[in-house]
Amino acid sequence: MTTPSALSRAFPPVHVEAGLVTLGSPAVRLRDALDAVFTGWADRAGAERVLCPPLASAADLADFDYFVNFPHLALAAAPVDTSDPDTLPGRGDDASLSPDRLGSTALLLPSAACYNLYSALRGARLDRTVKATTIAQCFRREKEYQGLRRLHGFTMREIVAIGGPEDVQAHLERHAALIGEFADHLGLDLATEVATDPFFDPDGSRAVMQRLFPVKQEFVTADGVAIASVNHHRNFFGERADLRVEGETAHTACVAFGVERWLHALQTRFAGDWDAACDAVRAYPGARA
Amino acid sequence: MTTPSALSRAFPPVHVEAGLVTLGSPAVRLRDALDAVFTGWADRAGAERVLCPPLASAADLADFDYFVNFPHLALAAAPVDTSDPDTLPGRGDDASLSPDRLGSTALLLPSAACYNLYSALRGARLDRTVKATTIAQCFRREKEYQGLRRLHGFTMREIVAIGGPEDVQAHLERHAALIGEFADHLGLDLATEVATDPFFDPDGSRAVMQRLFPVKQEFVTADGVAIASVNHHRNFFGERADLRVEGETAHTACVAFGVERWLHALQTRFAGDWDAACDAVRAYPGARA
Repeated sequence: MTTPSALSRAFPPVHVEAGLVTLGSPAVRLRDALDAVFTGWADRAGAERVLCPPLASAADLADFDYFVNFPHLALAAAPVDTSDPDTLPGRGDDASLSPDRLGSTALLLPSAACYNLYSALRGARLDRTVKATTIAQCFRREKEYQGLRRLHGFTMREIVAIGGPEDVQAHLERHAALIGEFADHLGLDLATEVATDPFFDPDGSRAVMQRLFPVKQEFVTADGVAIASVNHHRNFFGERADLRVEGETAHTACVAFGVERWLHALQTRFAGDWDAACDAVRAYPGARA
Repeated sequence: MTTPSALSRAFPPVHVEAGLVTLGSPAVRLRDALDAVFTGWADRAGAERVLCPPLASAADLADFDYFVNFPHLALAAAPVDTSDPDTLPGRGDDASLSPDRLGSTALLLPSAACYNLYSALRGARLDRTVKATTIAQCFRREKEYQGLRRLHGFTMREIVAIGGPEDVQAHLERHAALIGEFADHLGLDLATEVATDPFFDPDGSRAVMQRLFPVKQEFVTADGVAIASVNHHRNFFGERADLRVEGETAHTACVAFGVERWLHALQTRFAGDWDAACDAVRAYPGARA
């Protein structure tokens, strides 16, 4: 039997091209170690583990004002029209598919992991605050992509609370503290920055409210990369997805981790020594066995 | 602190709608236990752990005759044209996006996990057989979807060998034996069926060869669901992706697991008792600690 270390590696730890990343073994191991920390936090918060569909309903997202707030991100999953096989790309073709070769669709690729959680609960009448954690491939269309820092396709782990305002606020505060504690353990220098998020009413009143009462806090590396955020949506998703807790419209909040951005931060912090980074993550007292 | 079991569950173990599945905690735990078995096999085979981009290049797939062999599966990731905001769906709209609202794209959603592995190695000159394991969200357009058995979006774990013909053949035989042993342990009644696969030349000669020398073997449950397969591609991807091992065109083979289909098989086998299924998987002697 051959052990992985006995093989010359065919795949480098990280290879990024056009905003798409291939991770080799050392980076995959670090990713798994990081995710064990995040899911360990989720377990301790009593979060259910949920895996949502890899696509999101465009109608559900429209109900969340998605096309008003994030039109530039919208990426559709569209069938290729194969009615005329002669027009389909063959070997050596540039293979760009123009819209006239595509069919209609009602499905989008998600830009964040938690939308599908709120959609899955649509109409729920909960008797207490519910917490859930999920991980998803997410997609953002950007003018420019930058290594692991800004990818077209990336992975987002979230820990979400749906319930009463106090529970939801406590959820954010607890996880903000855990992120700070974990960063200290890793020797990661993270600044917290208040950000504005475009969950606003078209008339701008919610945007104004957000500037008065910050609802998004980001955890930012010394080189300016937001690797985690805590987000308070107040009653926005509760109203739009008709979520009620003990008779009241639910508040929601999410703690979000950009997994590849954590890899970037730790690659920098440990000067490319993936094993050292992995050891440091696994030595975190909160890491699961 | 609340433990997950103390919460009333907001998410059922499995909810399928229109070919898209949401998994709740018991099913996620079983999925993780199954994947630990598959990755344990991969580790013992000396496979590198690789995570590929969630999208595939249409040009790379065209080089693999994808649009000749699987045109009906092709699903593109197309940007939504946001130049006229008034045409974008809002709250309560049906939100179907017609092709005239989409832009051009050169990216597809993959229908199998291993294409991106061969693409990542394009042009490689290897000095020995390389093995790799990967997991990916995959997508298939079907006329009809059926519970966990036939999904629009699903998860595929693969263990791939790229190298000399004997190594590649031994890889398939070893994993076919492991699948049989694991099924026996679980009390799963799996039949092996030889299948044809559309990796053929347009002139049909390879299709003929496949009927003479079977290259795909499926592991099929009593209710007719193929939950795993071993696939010998001979030199197909080696030629198309210019992969050479010790100076010769590489042969490739993959062992593929349809993760949600395994959940279906175990849900049936254990009559919906997810914990019992999970215990059985974890008790498999080959499962990782």
